[in-house]
Amino acid sequence: VASGKRTLRAMDDDDLRWPTIGRDPGNDYRVFRTAFLRSRHPRSGAEKRFSLIECDDWVNVIALTPADDVVLLRQYRAGNDRIMLEIPGGMIDRGEAPDVAAARELREETGYAATTWRPLGRVSPNPALFANTLHSFLALDATQVGPPSPDAGEVLSVETVPLAEVTAMLRDGRIDHALVIAAFHHLMLATGDALRRP
Amino acid sequence: VASGKRTLRAMDDDDLRWPTIGRDPGNDYRVFRTAFLRSRHPRSGAEKRFSLIECDDWVNVIALTPADDVVLLRQYRAGNDRIMLEIPGGMIDRGEAPDVAAARELREETGYAATTWRPLGRVSPNPALFANTLHSFLALDATQVGPPSPDAGEVLSVETVPLAEVTAMLRDGRIDHALVIAAFHHLMLATGDALRRP
Repeated sequence: VASGKRTLRAMDDDDLRWPTIGRDPGNDYRVFRTAFLRSRHPRSGAEKRFSLIECDDWVNVIALTPADDVVLLRQYRAGNDRIMLEIPGGMIDRGEAPDVAAARELREETGYAATTWRPLGRVSPNPALFANTLHSFLALDATQVGPPSPDAGEVLSVETVPLAEVTAMLRDGRIDHALVIAAFHHLMLATGDALRRP
Repeated sequence: VASGKRTLRAMDDDDLRWPTIGRDPGNDYRVFRTAFLRSRHPRSGAEKRFSLIECDDWVNVIALTPADDVVLLRQYRAGNDRIMLEIPGGMIDRGEAPDVAAARELREETGYAATTWRPLGRVSPNPALFANTLHSFLALDATQVGPPSPDAGEVLSVETVPLAEVTAMLRDGRIDHALVIAAFHHLMLATGDALRRP
């Protein structure tokens, strides 16, 4: 039985990487496009074809009111055919800065605005298939400044929930959207919590 | 300016849901398939076409050694063209139970096995596009029982990292795979941490 750091860490990045030798277009689905990579492993010479999904970058926002309520959305998601409880977010427009997109999505989807913004972190939503990045932001002292103005065809319900109740929702699965969880995870790490042995 | 719970919570689930009136097949990319939903909103009568990605369910595993090291993998991900630091995981085979798939992926990808298993939680990886579910598990007292036996074309590097160092990696972005974060988030919630105002 192999053990020890030397055996386990044998491979460096050049052993792991599959350099691209060709790229073929797939199909355009408007909200995403498919593509194919042809890759060859430098050590083995093996060739492999990867199917990819191309998508613009995404943002999402944890917006806290002065009372420490979180601004949440309920909306129908066709992917899993469920009404999901989420935080505001969406696609970054071409050429738009992530923080500008975050403020825009918060305003459009909920009618809320905030003056104090902090970046929470960036994640790869699914690097096996997607090239894109999700940028998460924290908005403090958020207040409703007008009605929501969702995109045509977006039907959204806005509700505010105390931060402590959101923890319960994350724990019991009422909030189970992985990209929403990623944002709250960064908030939790930013406030100092750490992993412990269960 | 609208405010108050009554205005914010006006819509119930029947207002939000877009019932499906037709489903059209897209393309088969082997690791996923595309499809199209035609939907009509019951209140407005508006019709909408959703592009979907169909995929089998996924599992991932936080495996802790007796010394509280986490069993991590480094592997190339074609989606974002990066070497990613991840936990073991993969697709659930047709008819396979999620816990069986988790133990199989841990064994195949790392050579580790564990006798004590706990479900950590389930998430929707991306419900706007995907119907599938990710099942996360905790494996305790994991030990290496043999060499890894990855799938043909999988090139993986196994390493073990103390749990406290994994917290640092999540905080500074060395671990930034959203679905890996979802698993650690459930571990953190299971051990009692909660969201606090920053």
